[in-house]
Amino acid sequence: MSDFGTEELSARGVCAQARPFSYFDAFVKTFSDAYDRESNPDGYINLAVAQNNLTVDLLHDRFNDALKELSPSTTAQYDDMKGSHAMRCAMARHMTRRVVADDSVEAVRAEDLVLSSGAGAVIENLVFCVCNEGDGVFIPSPYYPAFPNDLRARLGVQTVPVSSTRSSASRGQVCLPQAARRRNIEERKDLHMKMILLSNPSNPQGIIYSREDMEETIVWAVSQKLHVISDEIYACSIFGEGGHAFVSAISIVEKLIKDALDRGDAEFAQNCRDYVHVVYGMSKDFCASGYRVGALWTQNAGIHRALDNVSYFCAIPGPMQHALAIVLNDDEFLDGFFEENRKRLRKQYATVAERIDASVIEIVPTSGMFVYFNLRKYLPEIQPTYEDEHRLWNHIYTEAKVVLTPGKDCASDEPGWFRMCFAAVPEHTLRQAIERIRAAFETIRDSSRC
Amino acid sequence: MSDFGTEELSARGVCAQARPFSYFDAFVKTFSDAYDRESNPDGYINLAVAQNNLTVDLLHDRFNDALKELSPSTTAQYDDMKGSHAMRCAMARHMTRRVVADDSVEAVRAEDLVLSSGAGAVIENLVFCVCNEGDGVFIPSPYYPAFPNDLRARLGVQTVPVSSTRSSASRGQVCLPQAARRRNIEERKDLHMKMILLSNPSNPQGIIYSREDMEETIVWAVSQKLHVISDEIYACSIFGEGGHAFVSAISIVEKLIKDALDRGDAEFAQNCRDYVHVVYGMSKDFCASGYRVGALWTQNAGIHRALDNVSYFCAIPGPMQHALAIVLNDDEFLDGFFEENRKRLRKQYATVAERIDASVIEIVPTSGMFVYFNLRKYLPEIQPTYEDEHRLWNHIYTEAKVVLTPGKDCASDEPGWFRMCFAAVPEHTLRQAIERIRAAFETIRDSSRC
Repeated sequence: MSDFGTEELSARGVCAQARPFSYFDAFVKTFSDAYDRESNPDGYINLAVAQNNLTVDLLHDRFNDALKELSPSTTAQYDDMKGSHAMRCAMARHMTRRVVADDSVEAVRAEDLVLSSGAGAVIENLVFCVCNEGDGVFIPSPYYPAFPNDLRARLGVQTVPVSSTRSSASRGQVCLPQAARRRNIEERKDLHMKMILLSNPSNPQGIIYSREDMEETIVWAVSQKLHVISDEIYACSIFGEGGHAFVSAISIVEKLIKDALDRGDAEFAQNCRDYVHVVYGMSKDFCASGYRVGALWTQNAGIHRALDNVSYFCAIPGPMQHALAIVLNDDEFLDGFFEENRKRLRKQYATVAERIDASVIEIVPTSGMFVYFNLRKYLPEIQPTYEDEHRLWNHIYTEAKVVLTPGKDCASDEPGWFRMCFAAVPEHTLRQAIERIRAAFETIRDSSRC
Repeated sequence: MSDFGTEELSARGVCAQARPFSYFDAFVKTFSDAYDRESNPDGYINLAVAQNNLTVDLLHDRFNDALKELSPSTTAQYDDMKGSHAMRCAMARHMTRRVVADDSVEAVRAEDLVLSSGAGAVIENLVFCVCNEGDGVFIPSPYYPAFPNDLRARLGVQTVPVSSTRSSASRGQVCLPQAARRRNIEERKDLHMKMILLSNPSNPQGIIYSREDMEETIVWAVSQKLHVISDEIYACSIFGEGGHAFVSAISIVEKLIKDALDRGDAEFAQNCRDYVHVVYGMSKDFCASGYRVGALWTQNAGIHRALDNVSYFCAIPGPMQHALAIVLNDDEFLDGFFEENRKRLRKQYATVAERIDASVIEIVPTSGMFVYFNLRKYLPEIQPTYEDEHRLWNHIYTEAKVVLTPGKDCASDEPGWFRMCFAAVPEHTLRQAIERIRAAFETIRDSSRC
């Protein structure tokens, strides 16, 4: 590591030099040789980035329109680092209408929100407030492959995967509370387990936890004084039928608080307020990862007070907030946009489902922008390993020039799983990628297994 | 502190709840009762925020114009988290022309820059890379009052002020290298001193370090393997005559490297590359604290590698970078803008100098947007304390309803100093503030000293 001048850096600075996921360098390499139908038909196709390229045109056009309502010069000056009043109100309004979407609970309050430069920044700040260096966070697995780095890079917080797959016979029936209990606090005595971080709809599986699962998990966690982070960044990207209905943790916790107060359990109600947090943002549902907008919903006064201070390091520019508040308040546009986006996601997923051997799709996604599929049949039959998985990943990378996310990075509980982000590219590019992958599978069959 | 739910938070989360400076709550209180000539003539006037309100109109108009060149939808998607290629090139170009402005050294290279959401984020990330929790950073004092919080809030890094005032008889002749040496590493054995962080032009004094002072400090620090951060965020806000000419640390270090290589000292040349870093941004020179743009210049490969990772938590939105690159490349506009800004700063400072008793202005500022003046004559004559300073600050706050920065927050080496940010308000408001302060001084004279 002497190339990187580690001698003169801090231990944590050296630690942060670690790449955020195993395929990072391969991933970056694709940028300089990216596929283009006309100019570079043999280039790499990157399906490892959870980015929605399908509907970004609509959103960005509306954003550019909003810029015509010129921001005042006050947006060039300091404002509340947790987000401007207008933007927090607009985000609260959107979340009330489309994320929570539950008339039986109070509207999301702007003062419960903190807006920062992306959901990654939001999660980092929240975990910072709760965890000391070396503390641990449970994450139901398979999980979003960047979570471990988000918690480790600057915070030194450890992630402990807990398998949320009920059994290999019933893929797709996740089993959150049992999973969390299975790995209980006692199991890792060396770590202080402080939180459980889950994504719902889930990344990489594209499925939705049931209301019962979520409620049981929250009740269990709050009783254990474990903080719960529900990352709901795909809440408006539900495109498929047949899964559970999405219920925001905001709905669940508000109901738990009401029930607790009804039965006179003020302490449990307060713990629900203090221990349950929701993360949202514009990177996924709005196809706008480049806008760098994340949102935290929490009723924990101590966390708000700490964020009064540290939000300074990751605030959103005033002119962005000015324009985005206009977009977020445009219900006619947004309702149409989300409908169109769901339609495009559905169509794009159909392109995958039609072209990929149905046997590998054990979990049918209903949300998000990815499919998590099982390529075990291309691994050695007897005791396949993660090295075998890596060889298969590399075969697809070098032969098909397609980048997928290997299951190992998602803490999959067995080798052979891969995540394909099908919305990252236009349909014709996706078709091309699948053709290449199929051809690469043929060369495995023709020779021997990877 | 039970109101703030500290029980369920981490030690560092609780620590971050501390306010960033002593007058924070008083400062925030002014927002809800802010002075307005027409609607609230008795409201608070906040002169404790280093924000340039004088020329923001010109810059923001140009920015709004730049938005008419619509950004492509790729700006809504992921890009290099250290800054887009176009924006880094544009920032490098501006820094070459107007910050370094030295034909004898190479142009600033875009690849040596990392752009993040504000100079605070840049400094935090840089200190993170170099310092472990509990390590120490020397800061020549008096210093920018938010530096200690910037280093402590999330990093747990300690700041050690070193007085840079040569003697009370020669205010304004700062003496950087001697100051740094006076408090040498041995002096604080409990802390690992890793860096020296200085602002040049200096905040709060508004003065410029001489080339000799800077060079001697850098040579000394690099020889000690202390990292140097030169915060040059006011480099283009030099409005007065009579001080030293500003020389960027980039000029100095490039010359040191060349000289070292000429005499065959490759190790010292490499250490210069690894240990000297420059911070810049758009909050001050561009009057645009709300744009949240900070820049790090460093040639340290290890720091760049760590920032490849952690820049993700504080990236600048794509559409902002698109528009700001256009502004930064518009030399005709920028040359006129900086000239006009210097003119307005000069005029505004003249308003202060004409109205405030000359005897209190012991240090005549030539740069920045503040004057650091000595109100000791309003403190008790015998052994005045920082409590006396606070009483005077509070007298001005309650009687004049004007917020100043007390010297104690700047680690002044004696009580009685105050920073007034004279560009934070329009001229008529500044006049009003000074009238009120003068009247408040009268009530001290009429009764007794504070």
